[in-house]
Formats: sequence, structure tokens, C-alpha cells
Amino acid sequence: MKGDVEDAYRLLHPRPVVLICAGEKPNVMACSWITPVCDEPFMLAVAIWKENYTYDIIEKTNEFTVNVPPPELVNSVWIAGTKSGRELDKISVCKLKVSRAKKVKTYVLDDCLANMECIVEKKVEAGDHVVYISKVLESYADSTAFSKVWKKDILLHLGGRDFVVFGKKIQPTIEK
Amino acid sequence: MKGDVEDAYRLLHPRPVVLICAGEKPNVMACSWITPVCDEPFMLAVAIWKENYTYDIIEKTNEFTVNVPPPELVNSVWIAGTKSGRELDKISVCKLKVSRAKKVKTYVLDDCLANMECIVEKKVEAGDHVVYISKVLESYADSTAFSKVWKKDILLHLGGRDFVVFGKKIQPTIEK
Repeated sequence: MKGDVEDAYRLLHPRPVVLICAGEKPNVMACSWITPVCDEPFMLAVAIWKENYTYDIIEKTNEFTVNVPPPELVNSVWIAGTKSGRELDKISVCKLKVSRAKKVKTYVLDDCLANMECIVEKKVEAGDHVVYISKVLESYADSTAFSKVWKKDILLHLGGRDFVVFGKKIQPTIEK
Repeated sequence: MKGDVEDAYRLLHPRPVVLICAGEKPNVMACSWITPVCDEPFMLAVAIWKENYTYDIIEKTNEFTVNVPPPELVNSVWIAGTKSGRELDKISVCKLKVSRAKKVKTYVLDDCLANMECIVEKKVEAGDHVVYISKVLESYADSTAFSKVWKKDILLHLGGRDFVVFGKKIQPTIEK
């Protein structure tokens, strides 16, 4: 029997949680409202709440990086997702190591399994969020963790304090 | 050691795979390039390749439904993702049961765990894809499967023929 749902957006979870890094003095936020939107060239869309400090930064710089944390970084993800960079230097509190990005003027997180350097191409308002349609200029990953698909666990956000890794593999039993 | 990656968009997988249903004579396609973009009101963004038949339909109707399949529908998902509705009545081939949607002029899939009825508010081109920023007018779910978060397995797409369900739960060990 189907009924109305609370927190309906979570019907589209669990989904990879990433750390978005932006700014010359880098700030980090957690986000899972992100999706590829094109493969050639690789482009992604990410939705950022307009109250977020990261929104202020991206509005100025038009650049950011997307960093995929391993499960061990769950506490950093939690801090990055619940505290504001206006009040706290989250990178310092979380003891995250950063390196300069290659193509954009901000940083990537060394402890993450993969990093994507992005430049905003278009932006669209959606309620109190803004969707940045962005081109990925550069992407690199830990080759023991990712080779065409993820070989190691990444963190997926289910809702609230609940994160999951991925489980049993399933394949269709029919040919293409 | 980090290096360049093939199929870089899969860095943002695994992610829920959904069945998009559109049209008066309903057609279904599989898609995982979808994300919530706002919670109040619930809005989502979905990227559709311009070669897809579903693109032609949504361009005309501006409406579609998003349906979340259980793992048992993996073969239907595979057909919906690899065949075109221009050549095949996929709903009939997959023996999917449909009902009229309540708020939009197309159908929802009865065998799916949740259904969302959507109307396009804005569209943005991204390479050879179009991103539809859409308002969810109505959403409902199997209450034994979803209650604020998913309680039962849903299908996540890892890449190619590989799907996964979700596994072990992880929580941060710090307070908010």
C-alpha cells in the first residue's frame, strides 16, 4: 500500500556524499545533491543552498572542486555538512590535507579517493537552492580504489546521521 | 597514487537508478543522472540525452514520473536503459503494470517502490544532454519500504551491467 511520504527528497537517496571545496582560503562543505549531466565532455550539476557560505564563494569565483571521501572520513563529512565556514575553519578542525588544484584557483583534498576540478558554465535557481551546471576540467582518482567503476567503498548518504557503503552486486540475467 | 580516470562520470556513482515514465502512450527509460535540488518545495534535476525518445516526449508534454524500482526489476531496468521506445513497447515487453498518475498526464509504475509526479519548470542544455529542473507535485511510496529513509533495498547503478544494493550502515561518532 502506497502513501504520502515525509522527507520525500530522500526517495532519491542513498547517494554519494562529496566534499565541495571552494575559495582561495579554502572552505569545505558536504553535499550529496550532485549528478553527472553529460559524459562527453564530463559535466555535473550540483545544488547548493543559498544560505551556505560555499554559495557566496562560488558566486564570486565560479570554481570549485568535488572530492570523494572514503568511509573513514565520516566524521569530517558530518562536520563539513553541519557547521558553517563562516564560523569555523572546517579544513583545520577536520585536519584535512589540501593541495592546490591544477586548473582552478582553489584546493583539492588529499585524503579523498578522487578529485574533480570544476568551472561553472550555467546556473539555475531552484527554490532556495542554486543548481550549478559545471564542466569538469580535470579528474583523478586513487587507482587502487577506482578503475572504470569503484572497487573500494565510498560513503553514500541515506538521510540524517545515516550513511551506508554499497553492498551486494546485482547484474541483469539477460543480454544487452 | 592518483591518476587520470576513464569513465570519470562514474566517480559520482553508485546512485539510485529510476524509471522515467512519460507520454500519453507511456514509455519508460532507465536513468540515474537525477538529484534532488530543493526540499521545500521538493524539486529535482534530471539529465536526459537528446537522442532519447523520452527527450522527444518531455519536450512536448513537460511532464513525467520518476519511479524507484526494487532490485527484482533489474532486468526491466536493463531493457529500459538499453532499448529505445521508438522500436519497442518496453512497458509491454517488461510486463510492467501502470496506473494513471494523479497530477500529470502520464502513468506511474505499480511495481515500483515509490513514484514521483513531476512537471518541468526550467531546462538547461549541458553538452548533448538537457537538464530538466522539475517540481515534484506528488510523491508516494510503499510504507513498508520507505519511512523517512529507505528501509528496503533499492537498486543503485555502479556502471555498465553492475548494479548494487546498499550495505553496512555507518554513523558519525560525534554529536552534531
